[in-house]
Amino acid sequence: MDKKFVIGVIGAGRIGKIHIENLAHKIPNVKVKIIADVKIDEPLKQWAAEMGVLKVTQDANEIFKDPEIDVVVICSSTDTHAKFIIEAAKARKHIFCEKPIDTDLKRIKETLRVVKSSNVKLMIGFNRRFDHNFKRVRESVVSGLIGTPQIIKVTSRDPAPPPLEYIKVSGGLFMDMTIHDWDMVRYLAGDEVEEIFAYGGVLINPKFAKIDIDTAVAILKFKNGAMGIIDNSRQAVYGYDQRVEIFGSKGCAMADNDTPNTAHIYTADHTMSDKIPYFFLERYMGSYVSELQAFFDYLRNNKDPSPSGEDALKDNLIALAAKRSLDEHRPVKIEEVDK
Amino acid sequence: MDKKFVIGVIGAGRIGKIHIENLAHKIPNVKVKIIADVKIDEPLKQWAAEMGVLKVTQDANEIFKDPEIDVVVICSSTDTHAKFIIEAAKARKHIFCEKPIDTDLKRIKETLRVVKSSNVKLMIGFNRRFDHNFKRVRESVVSGLIGTPQIIKVTSRDPAPPPLEYIKVSGGLFMDMTIHDWDMVRYLAGDEVEEIFAYGGVLINPKFAKIDIDTAVAILKFKNGAMGIIDNSRQAVYGYDQRVEIFGSKGCAMADNDTPNTAHIYTADHTMSDKIPYFFLERYMGSYVSELQAFFDYLRNNKDPSPSGEDALKDNLIALAAKRSLDEHRPVKIEEVDK
Amino acid sequence: MDKKFVIGVIGAGRIGKIHIENLAHKIPNVKVKIIADVKIDEPLKQWAAEMGVLKVTQDANEIFKDPEIDVVVICSSTDTHAKFIIEAAKARKHIFCEKPIDTDLKRIKETLRVVKSSNVKLMIGFNRRFDHNFKRVRESVVSGLIGTPQIIKVTSRDPAPPPLEYIKVSGGLFMDMTIHDWDMVRYLAGDEVEEIFAYGGVLINPKFAKIDIDTAVAILKFKNGAMGIIDNSRQAVYGYDQRVEIFGSKGCAMADNDTPNTAHIYTADHTMSDKIPYFFLERYMGSYVSELQAFFDYLRNNKDPSPSGEDALKDNLIALAAKRSLDEHRPVKIEEVDK
Amino acid sequence: MDKKFVIGVIGAGRIGKIHIENLAHKIPNVKVKIIADVKIDEPLKQWAAEMGVLKVTQDANEIFKDPEIDVVVICSSTDTHAKFIIEAAKARKHIFCEKPIDTDLKRIKETLRVVKSSNVKLMIGFNRRFDHNFKRVRESVVSGLIGTPQIIKVTSRDPAPPPLEYIKVSGGLFMDMTIHDWDMVRYLAGDEVEEIFAYGGVLINPKFAKIDIDTAVAILKFKNGAMGIIDNSRQAVYGYDQRVEIFGSKGCAMADNDTPNTAHIYTADHTMSDKIPYFFLERYMGSYVSELQAFFDYLRNNKDPSPSGEDALKDNLIALAAKRSLDEHRPVKIEEVDK
Repeated sequence: MDKKFVIGVIGAGRIGKIHIENLAHKIPNVKVKIIADVKIDEPLKQWAAEMGVLKVTQDANEIFKDPEIDVVVICSSTDTHAKFIIEAAKARKHIFCEKPIDTDLKRIKETLRVVKSSNVKLMIGFNRRFDHNFKRVRESVVSGLIGTPQIIKVTSRDPAPPPLEYIKVSGGLFMDMTIHDWDMVRYLAGDEVEEIFAYGGVLINPKFAKIDIDTAVAILKFKNGAMGIIDNSRQAVYGYDQRVEIFGSKGCAMADNDTPNTAHIYTADHTMSDKIPYFFLERYMGSYVSELQAFFDYLRNNKDPSPSGEDALKDNLIALAAKRSLDEHRPVKIEEVDK
Repeated sequence: MDKKFVIGVIGAGRIGKIHIENLAHKIPNVKVKIIADVKIDEPLKQWAAEMGVLKVTQDANEIFKDPEIDVVVICSSTDTHAKFIIEAAKARKHIFCEKPIDTDLKRIKETLRVVKSSNVKLMIGFNRRFDHNFKRVRESVVSGLIGTPQIIKVTSRDPAPPPLEYIKVSGGLFMDMTIHDWDMVRYLAGDEVEEIFAYGGVLINPKFAKIDIDTAVAILKFKNGAMGIIDNSRQAVYGYDQRVEIFGSKGCAMADNDTPNTAHIYTADHTMSDKIPYFFLERYMGSYVSELQAFFDYLRNNKDPSPSGEDALKDNLIALAAKRSLDEHRPVKIEEVDK
Repeated sequence: MDKKFVIGVIGAGRIGKIHIENLAHKIPNVKVKIIADVKIDEPLKQWAAEMGVLKVTQDANEIFKDPEIDVVVICSSTDTHAKFIIEAAKARKHIFCEKPIDTDLKRIKETLRVVKSSNVKLMIGFNRRFDHNFKRVRESVVSGLIGTPQIIKVTSRDPAPPPLEYIKVSGGLFMDMTIHDWDMVRYLAGDEVEEIFAYGGVLINPKFAKIDIDTAVAILKFKNGAMGIIDNSRQAVYGYDQRVEIFGSKGCAMADNDTPNTAHIYTADHTMSDKIPYFFLERYMGSYVSELQAFFDYLRNNKDPSPSGEDALKDNLIALAAKRSLDEHRPVKIEEVDK
Repeated sequence: MDKKFVIGVIGAGRIGKIHIENLAHKIPNVKVKIIADVKIDEPLKQWAAEMGVLKVTQDANEIFKDPEIDVVVICSSTDTHAKFIIEAAKARKHIFCEKPIDTDLKRIKETLRVVKSSNVKLMIGFNRRFDHNFKRVRESVVSGLIGTPQIIKVTSRDPAPPPLEYIKVSGGLFMDMTIHDWDMVRYLAGDEVEEIFAYGGVLINPKFAKIDIDTAVAILKFKNGAMGIIDNSRQAVYGYDQRVEIFGSKGCAMADNDTPNTAHIYTADHTMSDKIPYFFLERYMGSYVSELQAFFDYLRNNKDPSPSGEDALKDNLIALAAKRSLDEHRPVKIEEVDK
């Protein structure tokens, strides 16, 4: 029978709660024993009890010190990820951590070094790799159906920009929002990015102008010669626009947006259907379950982790190169920013 | 080289003009020599000249008597079809005739008898058999791809009802409008109808009530056991709704409506696209060319004619059976009305 | 705050487990206290414990006698539904019961009489009313968007026939499989059926011939004059084909099948996408949650129940009329079978 | 009544024949009087006669000298375009010329100067502006429906590369194939390109390596801040892939590929539909008629010409900038190449 894993979760915000709920109801043979969060109140305790979690604490160390706990799931704020990964690794616990590991390159590398030397397993929460649509597109490459990938395209647009306050500390569009898309093109292409050139601008809200861009397009060269295209907007008024496409030597696979229902309504004016899902919770809910399944499959069966800590590092390097390309108005090789 | 056919066209109304234009520009190795129409005016003569037709006459006999003419295309009013078919047959000319041959059973049979004994070829203008969508659905049966047909469905709705005056002399919805659909289910199924049951009603315009129905649904049994479904409306406010479906033992083929363009527009309200084509001229234009191609292929290469005069007879029988089913409120076998 | 309902569930088979899981995880402010099933084993007990249900019993009376329990959810075999509804009603507990109430008309009516006199609430599990696609189509009528319904179409095909043993006791295709579709056309049309005519046949497996039909088409007349069309097959090799359409005076709403993903793959041969969902568990999973939400909304806010016990009765009458139409080869009025 | 235009056509190759046929059959009130071609044979003469053109000559001067001729349509080889435009302009005849005017910047400018000083009208055959799909997308901008354009995307892939011999004299992918796409992004955006960066590679056939690229992606900045994306391949094995998209402040309009029919076939393996049209003749046939209609509308009603000679010049500048970007591996401003 499958080994039962005992889990401590750090951070019970929106995404933390999603993981806890999935661990409680959708993932077999696992048990969340402790939830640690900087802010504990009655509703959280009650909710935790409903999820079958008996201990809620403000001290993450209780997780690290608990010998029964095998796995730490890190959903706390970004600036604590590296620290908690390192502590978990030192406590010899396997780690599932939300993206990103950190925004600082040195710190990411140091973190990965500790994970490696501690001989624990690490997977990063780039959940979109587990989206039913994108997975299917990737499969069409893996199966050989569409041949060698030549052009990889990702369209990724948010429905509405976050508050300016958030933007200021976000690390910028390339690090905060496009980070998922850097990971997606690498995943789809099955290859590494060599160079990037990006355009960015402020087309939505002039208030962004001094802080960040809100619209961007980028093209990339992969090491194998394939080319990538990404376009981003902070504001697609029609909803969360998430599409990918791989063009290959034997065909082309395209994933369109999900739709809330399949109804088409013909009227005297036009044919209409309902808007696409509003944002990532509506669109990617299923992928959060699938990524946890993959994580435990990795723990149990030693499958290659995807996305690994190294993936996260590489995605981060592309973000840095994209930012430099934007700033210096020239194509930038990934190796230029990797030091 | 292909034999060149010389053609006389009787009737230069809307559909006659379409055929003449196609014969002039789209069909190789044919020549329209004479156009006969009850009403001749200057614009018609001019138009004929532009089409390369040098003679326009009120006397159809000029066509029948012209020894150079091999083929008669009959596009005159319905009540003259049988008469002109017979005269053409007696003059030993091949015939392409618009549907229907006649609305009277005896007269249809007599007409077919003359055609047969005259040893000329006859094809009837059920153009929808040549529609790019429906042909593709039929091919999925012929190729074996979807196995044995079990359920055949036709949706056929006009955008707006014709004038009441037209309705009065039309022979009724089943004979005037559904006649195309009787032919379509037979074509798609590749089998003959054994029995039919129909519901009809006046749901659009109460003024129809004393004259005809304006909405109908019918189910049929084919001799091989397959079942058919047809639904009709005289008024689909969103345009000309023309869809078919064959469900078989190995799959299902469905043809959706054509669209004027492939643009999808996402807005803050909904996803929209343009209305489907308005009526048969927009939708079936290509099929008028294809049916003439098939007709001359029949003349030149002796392929089985489809739709033949016998097809038209069988379609007519179904219409009669449908009408009787409606009137007598019971399922009616085709053989009951065939005498 | 919302009243908390305490629930007893009778029957923990496939559908019972789905309801229990939804009650445990997806429906707020409810608690399953007792599960009763004729067959209890260790795995069931363990599973129940995981769902937070502490008592599992073979005696349904423990549910009826428990004063804390407000609601009974009946998921046992069809032949026990009426009995358990009556016992629950007499015990003054509200009832959610899987379809059908019974196959015997008298027994259904007697059951509904007891429910009414006991003054408890009853809802029947015609889950498809809560399907995201069909609900959207119905909304297009309710909102007035497509005007007055004139033609209502339901396509409903199973992926594979059940075992012959099941067929023998199923009550026949019209009672066992089409029962959902009778309910669907009534729900979509927002009106009652007056008359029906049906064709049926054995097109899939000759072994059905002495027991039941495996393919059917039926047309119906609604009291308001609208017309309905249903087609059924026990075997659609491409998956569970579930589509509906309402054609109205101002437009037409169509719900297509769900798809497992939105990927389209263009190859040198053709454009392809993945098969539709295999069966009802894949397709209708979300509707099981929504129907429970509606049930508790009915209990708490006294909304009209849909589908009610009367709905189930009416669906049953249509099934009987359809069967009689098939047997007597004539259109049958619903009132003919209602005695 | 509309003025009748008399036309001389230079060049009766594939595209010339299409224009002549459209002029003969689809465009009212025009007459082709002379066809000039370097190579005349019997079949051409016969074909011309069928098109109602009585004179076929090797000497284009017969067209320029004919006082009855108002309009010259130039479909000869690219290297003769500028020369014939200039001669036609000097002969005071209006001009419709296939793209491009020339590949040499100076020569294009000189040509446009002569046209202007001769006070004749000139339109260039960028037929895709008249495609039913792309026109609809553009209309969604013009009508204000999707707000201010922010991202414009063009996917443009040929089904198979031309022969190497052709590639050698083609001016390269950016000048030969992408030239249509430079025009398309400008048309869709309704703005001018300021700067471009491009990647290109040889991913299809190594034999291209010394001659040209066969795959490319490019991003552009428009003067108003909007961004453009183009991707090209010389070989899409599934057919001629032609899609565009405009993302704006109020919505997004996307045009998908045309399909040969609307049939969808569900099988036990997958859902399939037919391949997209093979190449430009299949896909853009309708646009050749529409562009001639627009040309004569320009002549008769003095509408702004689109695409004008200046459009052709601007498209050429982008091609040059794209090539320089590729060669010098840096973003290139359009003004850099405009001298």
